[in-house]
Amino acid sequence: MNDRYEEGINELKKHLGEDAESYIRRIEEISPFFAKINVEFAYGDIYKETDKVLDSVTQELITVSALTVLGYATPQLKVHVDAALNRGATKEQVIATITQMIDYCGFPAATNALLAAKEVFDAREL
Amino acid sequence: MNDRYEEGINELKKHLGEDAESYIRRIEEISPFFAKINVEFAYGDIYKETDKVLDSVTQELITVSALTVLGYATPQLKVHVDAALNRGATKEQVIATITQMIDYCGFPAATNALLAAKEVFDAREL
Amino acid sequence: MNDRYEEGINELKKHLGEDAESYIRRIEEISPFFAKINVEFAYGDIYKETDKVLDSVTQELITVSALTVLGYATPQLKVHVDAALNRGATKEQVIATITQMIDYCGFPAATNALLAAKEVFDAREL
Amino acid sequence: MNDRYEEGINELKKHLGEDAESYIRRIEEISPFFAKINVEFAYGDIYKETDKVLDSVTQELITVSALTVLGYATPQLKVHVDAALNRGATKEQVIATITQMIDYCGFPAATNALLAAKEVFDAREL
Amino acid sequence: MNDRYEEGINELKKHLGEDAESYIRRIEEISPFFAKINVEFAYGDIYKETDKVLDSVTQELITVSALTVLGYATPQLKVHVDAALNRGATKEQVIATITQMIDYCGFPAATNALLAAKEVFDAREL
Amino acid sequence: MNDRYEEGINELKKHLGEDAESYIRRIEEISPFFAKINVEFAYGDIYKETDKVLDSVTQELITVSALTVLGYATPQLKVHVDAALNRGATKEQVIATITQMIDYCGFPAATNALLAAKEVFDAREL
Repeated sequence: MNDRYEEGINELKKHLGEDAESYIRRIEEISPFFAKINVEFAYGDIYKETDKVLDSVTQELITVSALTVLGYATPQLKVHVDAALNRGATKEQVIATITQMIDYCGFPAATNALLAAKEVFDAREL
Repeated sequence: MNDRYEEGINELKKHLGEDAESYIRRIEEISPFFAKINVEFAYGDIYKETDKVLDSVTQELITVSALTVLGYATPQLKVHVDAALNRGATKEQVIATITQMIDYCGFPAATNALLAAKEVFDAREL
Repeated sequence: MNDRYEEGINELKKHLGEDAESYIRRIEEISPFFAKINVEFAYGDIYKETDKVLDSVTQELITVSALTVLGYATPQLKVHVDAALNRGATKEQVIATITQMIDYCGFPAATNALLAAKEVFDAREL
Repeated sequence: MNDRYEEGINELKKHLGEDAESYIRRIEEISPFFAKINVEFAYGDIYKETDKVLDSVTQELITVSALTVLGYATPQLKVHVDAALNRGATKEQVIATITQMIDYCGFPAATNALLAAKEVFDAREL
Repeated sequence: MNDRYEEGINELKKHLGEDAESYIRRIEEISPFFAKINVEFAYGDIYKETDKVLDSVTQELITVSALTVLGYATPQLKVHVDAALNRGATKEQVIATITQMIDYCGFPAATNALLAAKEVFDAREL
Repeated sequence: MNDRYEEGINELKKHLGEDAESYIRRIEEISPFFAKINVEFAYGDIYKETDKVLDSVTQELITVSALTVLGYATPQLKVHVDAALNRGATKEQVIATITQMIDYCGFPAATNALLAAKEVFDAREL
């Protein structure tokens, strides 16, 4: 286990909390390399870099908006709605972020994102 | 000209600055209705609502990330990179936002967004 | 409840029939604003405007084709297949609309749309 | 030249008019097979089949809406705006079709489609 | 049953094996025409043509990568992961193909493809 | 300059040839970090990993098919058509790869890819 992995897993835990390890473990079962770069690159490289100029809430909200407009990324959207709340975003900010996306992806993708976010809010009893 | 339009055009000008009116005028030539809802709905309704819980920089960065992952929305991406800078985002924050999207859309869409953002930076001599 | 809302909900009911209110109610639980603009804007503004030059069947078939090629909008596709039938489209016209989309989105998106439409046909015993 | 090709080229000419042959010729230079199936399958099979239950204007408007939401298909969108007008759609119907798509793809894709359609209207001096 | 259909169904069986007929039968129930062109065109025309210069494994891996980046085509992705293995690709080649797509579609679409592929590997006890 | 960068730039040059450095230089001007991970991650990590089980031609053809169906990634598609030819793919294999994608993305994205590939073939006088 090298430094990049160590830094990546720490970054990942800051955002995803308790669920970080089970998320990575599930991928590791199929492909250890895929799991490794998900940690080292997606978090260790990228989020550590954007940490320098974006606060944690912004890091998560720009991801929530992006996953909303993609339309197909429901599992990851739920992970990052959870992460946004972990990092200090309010439920209202998450809803506003998804709502603003109506302008950029229309109602279907935004509605599906809103309903997915609701599942996260419900699980946290918000 | 009703209240929603008035509020929309003010919101639009806060974000797009000088270019707001020429942008809308170009659409108006083809369809006055389309131009009207672009002002009244996209800005008058949506941005005025998200204003309540998102600061202006966040409003623009969540739009920049969304337009980056869509891949095809280059003209609008340039408008919102410009708007992000108008509202107080730094060049570094815009670059970080686009860079983080590599995780969610891969290199082609992120690279094309970066090159489009560069045109805006160059026009502003940043 | 203002005029735009009233007009929107009427337009919505013309298309979605009985299910209109439960659809909106579900969104309203999470975000009253989102539900409100879904009614006022998506139906009250847009469909009321396009009503002027498009007949109801065309309004629904252009939506069915669009939702087919998006690929990810299965819940909304089913709503609008139902709406198309409510407004007088035949089952054969819905199938033809989805079939023609093979030219524009290939087989996977069109096949998934066809299977989703079948669920609506089955529920109506067509 | 077999029957499917013959039927396809006739169908293609009904929709695209004078430009049909130069469009196909350009593809033929790179790949005769690709050009052949574009005629035989996309028009000879598909449009001939949907002809049975959709009128020509509807055939074209469902294609215009689909190409609008795809976001990247500007050259084909212009071809089918032209085809829609050739088959008897009005400029107002084309604009309404694109406008309604704001609900399903947001403003960027719809705006780009509107500006592309304008080029076709201008070329026809509408 | 004409020659193109015969050739298409043979091609389809070479790739999909035992499951080919039930896949087509399910579509046929809703639309015999859709099922027919899925066989005659998608396999009888296209795969028979690309057979001339691409070996079977390559034919399937280029399809796996394409379905991965589309993001929404999970059912078809599973069909073609299965087909890739039927045609002689290894589990490792399928995983490498999906992994390389991280560069082109980011982690969400690639992760969802990896998890879908795992279901196929599990069903084959690989 | 670390080992990952060194390995990445070698991998990149194997695929892109002479143009590799100017491509990276252009990105570096805007963001040295973005350019660095494009080399270290996209090539140094990913392609070096997939090298183990995929031959070079397959590596490039699965990328060509993916970029074809994305629809918006024309600049990168041209880079990888060039890379495919550099690594030993034939013009006919590139055309077959794009043609097969009609099944998965329809005619517009495949046609635009074919026309982009033609520019690469013409530049190489193929």
